[in-house]
Amino acid sequence: MAKITKVSPLAPAAFPDLPVIDGVEFAAVAAGVRYQGRTDVMLARLAPGTTMTGTFTRSATRSAPVLDCQEKIGSHSDSGAAIIVNSGNSNAFTGKAGVISTRAVTSTVATALDIPESRVFSSSTGVIGEPLPHERITAKIADLQAALRPDGIADAARAIMTTDTFPKGATATVKINGKPVKIAGIAKGSGMIAPDMATMLVYIFTDAAIDRATLQPMLSRLTDLTFNAITVDSDTSTSDTLLLAATGASDVKVTANDTGFVEALQSVMLDLAHQVVRDGEGATKFVEIAITGAANDTDARTHAMSIANSPLVKTAIAGEDPNWGRVVMAIGKSGAAADRDLLSIRFGDVLVAENGWVSPDYKEADAAAHMKGQNLRIAVDLGLGTGASTVWTCDLTHGYIDINADYRS
Amino acid sequence: MAKITKVSPLAPAAFPDLPVIDGVEFAAVAAGVRYQGRTDVMLARLAPGTTMTGTFTRSATRSAPVLDCQEKIGSHSDSGAAIIVNSGNSNAFTGKAGVISTRAVTSTVATALDIPESRVFSSSTGVIGEPLPHERITAKIADLQAALRPDGIADAARAIMTTDTFPKGATATVKINGKPVKIAGIAKGSGMIAPDMATMLVYIFTDAAIDRATLQPMLSRLTDLTFNAITVDSDTSTSDTLLLAATGASDVKVTANDTGFVEALQSVMLDLAHQVVRDGEGATKFVEIAITGAANDTDARTHAMSIANSPLVKTAIAGEDPNWGRVVMAIGKSGAAADRDLLSIRFGDVLVAENGWVSPDYKEADAAAHMKGQNLRIAVDLGLGTGASTVWTCDLTHGYIDINADYRS
Repeated sequence: MAKITKVSPLAPAAFPDLPVIDGVEFAAVAAGVRYQGRTDVMLARLAPGTTMTGTFTRSATRSAPVLDCQEKIGSHSDSGAAIIVNSGNSNAFTGKAGVISTRAVTSTVATALDIPESRVFSSSTGVIGEPLPHERITAKIADLQAALRPDGIADAARAIMTTDTFPKGATATVKINGKPVKIAGIAKGSGMIAPDMATMLVYIFTDAAIDRATLQPMLSRLTDLTFNAITVDSDTSTSDTLLLAATGASDVKVTANDTGFVEALQSVMLDLAHQVVRDGEGATKFVEIAITGAANDTDARTHAMSIANSPLVKTAIAGEDPNWGRVVMAIGKSGAAADRDLLSIRFGDVLVAENGWVSPDYKEADAAAHMKGQNLRIAVDLGLGTGASTVWTCDLTHGYIDINADYRS
Repeated sequence: MAKITKVSPLAPAAFPDLPVIDGVEFAAVAAGVRYQGRTDVMLARLAPGTTMTGTFTRSATRSAPVLDCQEKIGSHSDSGAAIIVNSGNSNAFTGKAGVISTRAVTSTVATALDIPESRVFSSSTGVIGEPLPHERITAKIADLQAALRPDGIADAARAIMTTDTFPKGATATVKINGKPVKIAGIAKGSGMIAPDMATMLVYIFTDAAIDRATLQPMLSRLTDLTFNAITVDSDTSTSDTLLLAATGASDVKVTANDTGFVEALQSVMLDLAHQVVRDGEGATKFVEIAITGAANDTDARTHAMSIANSPLVKTAIAGEDPNWGRVVMAIGKSGAAADRDLLSIRFGDVLVAENGWVSPDYKEADAAAHMKGQNLRIAVDLGLGTGASTVWTCDLTHGYIDINADYRS
């Protein structure tokens, strides 16, 4: 069957109005990497002095661009930086040719923008195992350079889409010592690895002045609470990439103690992460899984992900069935500590199970009413300790099978 | 929607002709636990001197009957034994009432058959979280006792079915010192935990004379190679139970070194395990995942299960798509050691990928032809060591969603 082009029923009403972040310019072009009649390459140029940080897929089979980014991300330079991203081809599992293609793209950008190649970060998303026709990209670098403009971020968000049904953006502004600091981000992703075309890609920009030693651990910690806390189908892309660029153009120095900034950054990351789930392949329900009372936070995350990734839980949600027996099953199989007779389960505000059995006051009609909504919540308290974790997922529907069983044929 | 009653396209042509195992008698009745118009309780009586061994779900939320079996299985007695199983209600997550129901059933059997209650093993499979109407079962114990007969195993296989689309049986005979030893087993299961009704249950009988100290570790080891090496949807039941009874009636003493017996037992267990996969909910393809060249056997199993449980791999198989990029993804995300540039992937006999890229001789038409079959094989060599593991699974289809999203409504 053909590509699914209907916008997800869980999509936001509109792409948000993202502010200009001083020190960043964007451009997008149609290079014909794989798609026709749409933009498929974006370029972002970062001003000298920009701090670059990132987090990447832990996959053992990660792609050439990811490996290249990981090598470069620790480097320090005041020479500015660039991010170049193509959709349509992931340049993953492409052997030595993949390395050559990545270098061809990044070196061409470096020369054109007059920045060191060690400061040019690239991502590729799309089909796996086919050579990247990098000459189609390098042929467009001059056009991209000419098109760079501070307010081009929405076009960039569209250029990186693959099977996404809507472009994803989020923003926040925080005042520090009376001066505004802006954050704006874009993302793509629908399914942890979409039909052959893969990947979650996230690019966030801020005009805060913040050094790498402060920003990288902050980003890593917030990634665990946001992008690492979402799952569509438990599958992990070979290309997941998150880059965060702080241009410093606001002249507002941010430290690790600026909780306002941390919260603003987290809100942008969480918003983008939720949008990825809302564009999950075939998704019709957005589901928060909240675990409390676990022996520790790690156990809480294990339980949360076991529920969020259970095909039986996810199909029950698709069927609007408050099937708490499957939640019990998912907790039981997770491997983390649980005591059947201490745990309690809530669907929305409805207490479903406690003391090892269905709650005496439980009426299935109440839970069933909650399940009819589009935004659901399943909360489990283990009754063991203070460990907590919240993750977000979507349901498993015929749409997922349609997209993934039939894509390449 | 209603229950799926169409027999799986992967079902064997017929239920096998299972031999009488001396020392075991079977009976089945319709007790109306939940279903109407079919048998739903089976009883097996084991002769005095029978060795009882078992393996059970590792779920932290396992059911009252499983906990009861685990308590009893280590006990020694020459007083005979019994197994009683009901379908329709799993007596899982039923609090203290569940314990009372289990005791009511096992004590009634113990009294009727005049054996210690510590030698009466029970299983329940079906809906979770509803009280087991155990009085419907205890009311039928006299009928069951009167109906016991040595050749009743096929009826027993039918009585334990829930969403199974066919009854499952397997047998093997091996000669030891010129004398035949017989093994016969039955199983139920379709989906690791089926629509609300759950569970894989397996009962195997042999007339070998073999002590517990020999048989239990043999069974545990073979379970890892058979029932623990299959997966339908990665979900684990709260009630999985395997009981193996050796009556000794053949008067043939079997030791741990009798490889003929070990192989025969393994073949029966593997046959039953494969039948469970072949009855996987919505399954249209039976798939062997064979890993070699891993750093060790544990890593090999991790990779194999990561592929076998990947929704993207399973939907690709449903679509008859030789989508090796998703196999690369599943290896990459598994967490076990892998080197992208050393691994090779085969679909059937077709070498698809090697040296970190698609094989130069690969023609997609060849792999696509393999994918059209009903029995598929995906083989991955990691190129790292001698670790190996083989697991079996099925595809993920619209049928799975139909069964699991709509079951309770």
